[in-house]
Amino acid sequence: MGIIVQKFGGTSVASRDSCAKVAAKVKKAIGAGNKVVVVVSAMGRRPAPYATDTLLDLISSYCQEVESRERDAIASCGEVISAAILASALKAEGLNAMSMTGFQAGIMTDGNFTDARISSIDTSRLSMLLEEGIVPVVAGFQGMNRSGDITTLGRGGSDTTAAALAAALKAEKVEIYTDVEGVMTADPRIVPEARFQKNVSYHDMAEMANLGSKVVHPRAVEIAMKSRTPLVIRNTFSESEGTVVDDGPISDVGSTVPDKPVSGITHTLGVTRVLIDISGKSGEDVSLEVLNSLAAAGISIDMISLFADRVAFIVSDKDADRTEACLSGMGFEFSTKRGCGTVSVVGQIMRGIPGVMSKVVKALRDAGIEIIQTSDSHNSISCLMRAEDVERAARALHSEFEPGM
Amino acid sequence: MGIIVQKFGGTSVASRDSCAKVAAKVKKAIGAGNKVVVVVSAMGRRPAPYATDTLLDLISSYCQEVESRERDAIASCGEVISAAILASALKAEGLNAMSMTGFQAGIMTDGNFTDARISSIDTSRLSMLLEEGIVPVVAGFQGMNRSGDITTLGRGGSDTTAAALAAALKAEKVEIYTDVEGVMTADPRIVPEARFQKNVSYHDMAEMANLGSKVVHPRAVEIAMKSRTPLVIRNTFSESEGTVVDDGPISDVGSTVPDKPVSGITHTLGVTRVLIDISGKSGEDVSLEVLNSLAAAGISIDMISLFADRVAFIVSDKDADRTEACLSGMGFEFSTKRGCGTVSVVGQIMRGIPGVMSKVVKALRDAGIEIIQTSDSHNSISCLMRAEDVERAARALHSEFEPGM
Repeated sequence: MGIIVQKFGGTSVASRDSCAKVAAKVKKAIGAGNKVVVVVSAMGRRPAPYATDTLLDLISSYCQEVESRERDAIASCGEVISAAILASALKAEGLNAMSMTGFQAGIMTDGNFTDARISSIDTSRLSMLLEEGIVPVVAGFQGMNRSGDITTLGRGGSDTTAAALAAALKAEKVEIYTDVEGVMTADPRIVPEARFQKNVSYHDMAEMANLGSKVVHPRAVEIAMKSRTPLVIRNTFSESEGTVVDDGPISDVGSTVPDKPVSGITHTLGVTRVLIDISGKSGEDVSLEVLNSLAAAGISIDMISLFADRVAFIVSDKDADRTEACLSGMGFEFSTKRGCGTVSVVGQIMRGIPGVMSKVVKALRDAGIEIIQTSDSHNSISCLMRAEDVERAARALHSEFEPGM
Repeated sequence: MGIIVQKFGGTSVASRDSCAKVAAKVKKAIGAGNKVVVVVSAMGRRPAPYATDTLLDLISSYCQEVESRERDAIASCGEVISAAILASALKAEGLNAMSMTGFQAGIMTDGNFTDARISSIDTSRLSMLLEEGIVPVVAGFQGMNRSGDITTLGRGGSDTTAAALAAALKAEKVEIYTDVEGVMTADPRIVPEARFQKNVSYHDMAEMANLGSKVVHPRAVEIAMKSRTPLVIRNTFSESEGTVVDDGPISDVGSTVPDKPVSGITHTLGVTRVLIDISGKSGEDVSLEVLNSLAAAGISIDMISLFADRVAFIVSDKDADRTEACLSGMGFEFSTKRGCGTVSVVGQIMRGIPGVMSKVVKALRDAGIEIIQTSDSHNSISCLMRAEDVERAARALHSEFEPGM
């Protein structure tokens, strides 16, 4: 018996029926003796009228330059609308629910509009409501800075809201409701052999989220890990138990249970590989010039690999034109390869297992896939390749490592 | 009041005097109402007669090929000798102590000689001794496999023994005694401005240990993290509180406390950079051939970066000759650069902070240092450079990021 934070995506508010599913989840948790805080996202995607992107398109149609403070003010409404609707629907289902904006729920952030970080949460009002038997339905993705301006938390912000509320309320767990059964060993749309996972460690989940898994936002995983709050990924539309993300399977001596070096295969699509030839130039000067000008243009880069004679990195396909313009403007010799993707092998104890890189290369070679570039960390190896190879690569690596077996 | 595992290095057993220092630490913990388990390493380094390397040199002088089972059998004696000496010395200091081999302490491992992993610990005998008021002095770095053979745990094995015993015994904490005050923001021998850190997160500590910090072995940090056992790095020869490694500073919403993106600067020396030109060949075939042949030769590689036209990685300087022989034998065109080093910036939330890579490059450029290659993970950026640049680079990055401020 404790507090459970339940986060629902925008599709959960799509209809009276789907709201009833939410009500059933809330009632079940309350029936088991818990207090429940609900967090909800904006409804759907463009062209849905209250989707974040639609609201941003709308304001942009009025003026060319929209200040980020105003972008956040309008974007935050998507979640407030969802919260008001869901609270009303939950009431109609017999629950005593009340909608709240991020600020009403006590969420304070820094002043970084469009990508703010939660700095503190005053839980007094939420706690009071819970004491009174009320179910707070909190608008995700938003907070307020010290000046009283509305801020938003960036991509995946509602997951972050849920995890942060759970941490601040010392909740028993945070449940992220979605339209899949939980965390799979790979995306089942491209790897039919993908297996459901009952349990994944915080670390592996954070790395999978960073490397392409869309089931939960990495920042939410980090907060859950730090606050030691179990995070459960479950399906709004089924009764399954979902995937528990926590410390993961641990042996009696505190190390990861062996025989399972790989937890999952993740992938991304729609990336462009940029390779800049800087041979004969001063590597540091050129690298710095590139990094600074892309940062100034607001272009995110990843898989960065600096050498004395080359700079390699990836950008999103949608930023490819601007990246090319930027680099041409600086007079660099470079090549770009659009339509690439990455496939990553994620596992806790990769560094301890010799030859994982060799197995990755062999599996991809046997599948006839060209590796454009690699990068690795202590619990992942990522390979860049042509987008059309991603599916075969994910399947080849899945069958090589058999995650979840 | 609980169990504390205290691990002492070989220098702690160097003399009657240093054993008295150990006795003082044990008595203080017992005086505070705790039960204590001591773990100890082998005495000193080559040419000390009972150092691990000396024992291995000794057996090698008898025959050319020594089986790994026999290497482990003799290497394990270094710690057994330390444990017997330390237990006797503690007795002379009035403590009821008893030495134990790894096996006697219940430590079972897999069968991977010279680099075994602990598979389980039967704590019944240790618990019985603790109940009787006895201080078990456990030989670190070793265990026994299912067949009853003695195994050793590889580099840093005594730290691993201590952390695993703490996990199995559900100890309140594991203390790693050393000859420094704790974890600094950089190695003070090369960065005089380095600051003492009261608290470091498990993640940052594990990454620092992986990237050159020698204060504790990364596997021990991983075990402490998994079992949520606080790990304290302290000085045998002072009264300072040392550095507490745990979840780290956390805000009330469970995220890392901001304003401290960088926890430390680490470095390594004595590495050789290998760059293989494979342009015009089939990248996967060549990469695989290289990875497999180096693995077969027992050569560890790091900072691996595979491209279609080049394979880049680093090896230890001591493996450079064998690496060259290996690659020449395969008929590759390659270059090696001996006498390199790496400097790494480690911090929990690096990925969230834009422009960290740009700051790294700028600081190194301003210091006139050539970056040979970079690699990064979600909480670190590493730069390869000439060894003679490492000290200046570490100082430049330390003053750029001011860790610990």
